[in-house]
Amino acid sequence: MKIAIMGFGVVGSGVAEVLAQNSISIAKKANEKIELVSILDIRKFDDSRFSHLLTKSMYDVINSGAQIIVETIGGTTHAYQYTKMAFEKGIHVVTSNKELVSKKGPELLALAKEHKVNYLFEASVGGGIPIIRPLEQCLAANEIYMIAGILNGTTNYILTKMREENLDFTTALYQAQQIGYAEADPTDDIEGYDTKRKIAILSSIAYGKFVDADMIPVKGIADIDAYDMSYSKALGTKIKLVGQSRLLDGKISAVVEPLMINAGEYLSTVDDVFNAILVKGDAIGEAMFYGRGAGKLPTASAVIADVVYITKNKDVIGKYDWSETLEHISESGSGRYFIRIVGEDHETAEKLSGGTVILGIKENEFGLVTNQISEENLKQLEGQLDVIKAIRYMQT
Amino acid sequence: MKIAIMGFGVVGSGVAEVLAQNSISIAKKANEKIELVSILDIRKFDDSRFSHLLTKSMYDVINSGAQIIVETIGGTTHAYQYTKMAFEKGIHVVTSNKELVSKKGPELLALAKEHKVNYLFEASVGGGIPIIRPLEQCLAANEIYMIAGILNGTTNYILTKMREENLDFTTALYQAQQIGYAEADPTDDIEGYDTKRKIAILSSIAYGKFVDADMIPVKGIADIDAYDMSYSKALGTKIKLVGQSRLLDGKISAVVEPLMINAGEYLSTVDDVFNAILVKGDAIGEAMFYGRGAGKLPTASAVIADVVYITKNKDVIGKYDWSETLEHISESGSGRYFIRIVGEDHETAEKLSGGTVILGIKENEFGLVTNQISEENLKQLEGQLDVIKAIRYMQT
Repeated sequence: MKIAIMGFGVVGSGVAEVLAQNSISIAKKANEKIELVSILDIRKFDDSRFSHLLTKSMYDVINSGAQIIVETIGGTTHAYQYTKMAFEKGIHVVTSNKELVSKKGPELLALAKEHKVNYLFEASVGGGIPIIRPLEQCLAANEIYMIAGILNGTTNYILTKMREENLDFTTALYQAQQIGYAEADPTDDIEGYDTKRKIAILSSIAYGKFVDADMIPVKGIADIDAYDMSYSKALGTKIKLVGQSRLLDGKISAVVEPLMINAGEYLSTVDDVFNAILVKGDAIGEAMFYGRGAGKLPTASAVIADVVYITKNKDVIGKYDWSETLEHISESGSGRYFIRIVGEDHETAEKLSGGTVILGIKENEFGLVTNQISEENLKQLEGQLDVIKAIRYMQT
Repeated sequence: MKIAIMGFGVVGSGVAEVLAQNSISIAKKANEKIELVSILDIRKFDDSRFSHLLTKSMYDVINSGAQIIVETIGGTTHAYQYTKMAFEKGIHVVTSNKELVSKKGPELLALAKEHKVNYLFEASVGGGIPIIRPLEQCLAANEIYMIAGILNGTTNYILTKMREENLDFTTALYQAQQIGYAEADPTDDIEGYDTKRKIAILSSIAYGKFVDADMIPVKGIADIDAYDMSYSKALGTKIKLVGQSRLLDGKISAVVEPLMINAGEYLSTVDDVFNAILVKGDAIGEAMFYGRGAGKLPTASAVIADVVYITKNKDVIGKYDWSETLEHISESGSGRYFIRIVGEDHETAEKLSGGTVILGIKENEFGLVTNQISEENLKQLEGQLDVIKAIRYMQT
């Protein structure tokens, strides 16, 4: 089996390295040798052991004899065009590009099917955690009705650092950038867009129809501050950026937001750059998948799993059909909330929410943990008191 | 696709129910209808909606037209004979029978291959947690070198109850039996034999050669008492029955034993009847799989996942080759230990182990947490002091 790589960045070069390093065992598992024949990148890599395979021309790649192309370019411009070119030439594509899969998945899957090739994207969610295929396997006997995940390693790292070292957001972000966990432009991560794409992809697999990421309301972590962390410590909770979706009467309710998670809840133990995905189905009950959500080798490992799958299962094509799109609804937003309120009117706060007041974290304000209240109650509270912010408690 | 079930107990009847309940979605996933045509059991089930399919004769089952047989008889006598009969007739077999797979796996896999059918056993480990196929997927690009798991729901439930409700072992076992989590004869669970079979199966998949369960040293939980639990609480640890294996220079070191697990370790959060499996590989780093390790519907769900796999992948046969057996070695047993010692000679204990003494749990004894010590050191300690028991700390 001949393969090519488009985009020789962190993940692409990781794929080349793991393939070279574990070539014998990979060949054994795939029942044939996997041979890397071409690498597309406009940059120069003269010192790389793979420099002889590098080309700047997509036509070289398409005509290299590769039967599978690994797309690790990222984004939706070149990656999109080149993926279509590959399909039209009858070449399978394996990718880690969640942005492209979540935006152009239906079109690309249909095109792949038309040309009798596969478009696989295990590496687009959860880094090295096998999640797409286990989800399929769960699905074999289950109606899955809930997915919740900590899906972005960068934000989880930042939130963990803020909590453990009493850092403010900006400092934690800077530290994450210094050690390469956050990019120079961290917008996609901290605003929750990356998480949104991933929960959309997982939901599309689990519920069998395309889920449009742009329909999912998103709140990022940029306004979480050191006081929120102090409150959460006092409450014995953790604040985590969570992507969640639920299937309700054939429609999807999905949201990405920072949540207060109680110590007993499973997702609360997932710290640093780790990811975890919780799935609920009617027969399985609940299952969780946990591991490194990002990084060169874990992600490369997931890409290669797809390459091996195609090599071993040449007859299986058209695994996913996203020709239909799932309708979105907003679940009635009752919940328990942690709320920060300016002033000292504890009595009104307690009366309106049936909740408990937390004092002593910051001057001239207090915290409040409400009972289960409706969104109307919350608005009423916001009307009568000077509410700084509200963070929902996770309910599973 | 026609299927039959051998053994209409908890899991077998669960398979029939889930198949009936989710028939439309299962047909969609398998690309064809899965039709249950025959059920073997010597018992009567007149009230069952499936009573018309029941037979006491294996020949009826073999000649029912079933292309896949689900074996949920358990044990190694009838299940073994009937599985061979099925293969010889060219029928695939899917099972949850870890005892049979771990004892006769090599012979049955070879016979299945000879007759060009599959022998799949996702449900034999981890109940509804998809683990066998995710492990294969990890394997595609990874050299896996470590597996550690809480693999038995019954013992995990007992240990959780003992800890949370200050129960002694016998009371917790009795309660587990009352609610159906433990069998009337709980030997396989509490002595660790069930865990041993499961870690042997997982290791066979991960390391690519058969691992003989009988070569794995096993220590059960029957001698864990309420004092051990009090010590473990005082230490902020939990005691869990763990099956572990490690690949060292092409040989396996495996053991099943109760371990002290620190609060920070991931397996420490796995309570009640839940199972979890931690896997380490060179590219993936670590990944964990968590869910209900037992129960009618989760296990049935795993069985059906295998049935759907065979239905969708008719050309894939001979997935596992266990014709070679992995050699066992004992890893040099250094470790940190929790030790209970009669008397008051704290000084000798601390001097010999470089450890820390814990007082006040029981009269006329003390606890000791050692530094990293060799097995020789441990024996020396046991020679010089009156050691009641030693529990190793988990190291991952």
